[in-house]
Amino acid sequence: MSDIIKVVVDAMGGDNAPEAPIKGAVDAVNENEKINVVLVGRTDDIKSELAKYTYDKERITIVHAEDIIGFDEPPVMAIRKKKQSSIVVGMNLVKHGEADAFVSAGSTGAILVGGQFVVGRIKGVERSPLAPLIPTAKGPALLIDCGANVDARASHLVQFAKMGSIYMERIVGIKNPRVAIVNIGAEEEKGNMLVKETYPLLKECKDINFVGSIEARDIPKGDADVIVCEAFVGNVILKLYEGLAATLLGKVKEGLMSSLRSKIGALLIKPALKSTLKQFDTSDQGGAPLLGLNGLVVKAHGSSTSVEITQAIRQCIQFNEEKINEKIKENLIIE
Amino acid sequence: MSDIIKVVVDAMGGDNAPEAPIKGAVDAVNENEKINVVLVGRTDDIKSELAKYTYDKERITIVHAEDIIGFDEPPVMAIRKKKQSSIVVGMNLVKHGEADAFVSAGSTGAILVGGQFVVGRIKGVERSPLAPLIPTAKGPALLIDCGANVDARASHLVQFAKMGSIYMERIVGIKNPRVAIVNIGAEEEKGNMLVKETYPLLKECKDINFVGSIEARDIPKGDADVIVCEAFVGNVILKLYEGLAATLLGKVKEGLMSSLRSKIGALLIKPALKSTLKQFDTSDQGGAPLLGLNGLVVKAHGSSTSVEITQAIRQCIQFNEEKINEKIKENLIIE
Repeated sequence: MSDIIKVVVDAMGGDNAPEAPIKGAVDAVNENEKINVVLVGRTDDIKSELAKYTYDKERITIVHAEDIIGFDEPPVMAIRKKKQSSIVVGMNLVKHGEADAFVSAGSTGAILVGGQFVVGRIKGVERSPLAPLIPTAKGPALLIDCGANVDARASHLVQFAKMGSIYMERIVGIKNPRVAIVNIGAEEEKGNMLVKETYPLLKECKDINFVGSIEARDIPKGDADVIVCEAFVGNVILKLYEGLAATLLGKVKEGLMSSLRSKIGALLIKPALKSTLKQFDTSDQGGAPLLGLNGLVVKAHGSSTSVEITQAIRQCIQFNEEKINEKIKENLIIE
Repeated sequence: MSDIIKVVVDAMGGDNAPEAPIKGAVDAVNENEKINVVLVGRTDDIKSELAKYTYDKERITIVHAEDIIGFDEPPVMAIRKKKQSSIVVGMNLVKHGEADAFVSAGSTGAILVGGQFVVGRIKGVERSPLAPLIPTAKGPALLIDCGANVDARASHLVQFAKMGSIYMERIVGIKNPRVAIVNIGAEEEKGNMLVKETYPLLKECKDINFVGSIEARDIPKGDADVIVCEAFVGNVILKLYEGLAATLLGKVKEGLMSSLRSKIGALLIKPALKSTLKQFDTSDQGGAPLLGLNGLVVKAHGSSTSVEITQAIRQCIQFNEEKINEKIKENLIIE
């Protein structure tokens, strides 16, 4: 029994709820016997959705939560007031050890706040970063932090570097991952106050493979595996990645549709183009972990389909098996 | 005589110096009778390069400067020590009213430092931002600041918004340009300390068309004309724009070359694709102005060809004719 992981899935979170999270949960349970799921949300909605599928009834249970936290609600207030929301009820299950992990495609802000205040941070962790994987020419890189921890301090960034390094090594399987700090030049003396203060601290860390500064230009090339920055900058990088890729590919498409000649060409290149661009698809990664908490919280994209929810649930197994939180604890206490 | 603008061109600046800046200057003079150029740099090198071309000898003069500031030299030290460098000599001509503008493809750091300390800021301007135009789906937008002014204050950002607004209206010809501040959410209460402090100040400005926050995701869509941020964030946006576009288009190319079928398709789509992607080419813009100085300083891309140098020189005419600096003075004094 001990090697079965219990994942709480927010049945009410995301643009495609409750269909996508429920189908995602069913698929995860059917494909992998190491996963049990607790669906949290409105029981009636969940039951009628579950009725569509065949699965082992003992492996998916329901915990009722009457409320839903919307995308536009101020997060701190929502977490404080809506004790019966799927996010708060679900996170409480993790907090009280009744489940190992919580997956939600709901409000990022509420998940970040709930992670810190409901689940709580590992002792010694100053801040809990949100760390999505972003595509690069050489495979995925971890962008840490993209959460709500604005105005971070140097000591926070050092912890992000360590936690990110453990994650990339254990979960993504990159040996001795290259850690870099986002900067506006490659030289050590460049940067704003935060970067100048953090740089020498990272250089001193013996338990990470610090390779120095990375300019934003070199992120898509894949010059680092763990990209450390404070959340405002991380958020700008993440969102610009999404926005620029969408606009550029839109322009390519527009070009392809602009003449008969190019339309014929488009038909010929379609399969090849699709497969190369697939490598640059952020949605494949499933979800972004919120690291350093007393339990695993995974934030899936708001527009997640069932496939992405299944992927987000799947990544919880490895997190558990690799004992990431134990590793984080050891690593931060040594310092 | 008074409507002729005198532009100093750094003959020694950039990866393609002295060929590109000198050809760029000759082409600018030959195409437009309102421009006279002063080439600053090593006289012998300039003379032998100029000998290749036909042009009105009275309209291109040479001012000797023995030294060159390299891309890897610490900027403050370089400006202080190398009084005989093309950048310092050239900027002094602007400072002493012997020329109207200075164009260089040399070291960004040295140009930023020289702008502030040699040319000097307009009285009342707290910081001088570097403001490149970036491509969006709806045409160019001004990204202000991308310079070396890290750790900016709210009052700086307000001045950037005003200067940027004047520039977009007068030089780029966008009526009532939409000004937005880069943020990690669209709501007024979101952001780091700097953004939260700046937002209400921008809202109060009656002389700009402030439209609120812009998330990085929406920048490529063209949701704002003047994009205000502090320099660290601006630099990340600018560099990620370049890097991501290069990597993505590299991936597209790789896809196109992956099979015989796709290669044939590639031949058919090439012209259409080229023309749509042309709109997303940053090099077309010539150079980025350093705003708020006692004279115009334009930073051209380090890899500028003669075409980009000519374009950078050309944009100085309009800057002068539209009396941008007078407009900036009026605007900042009113406050």
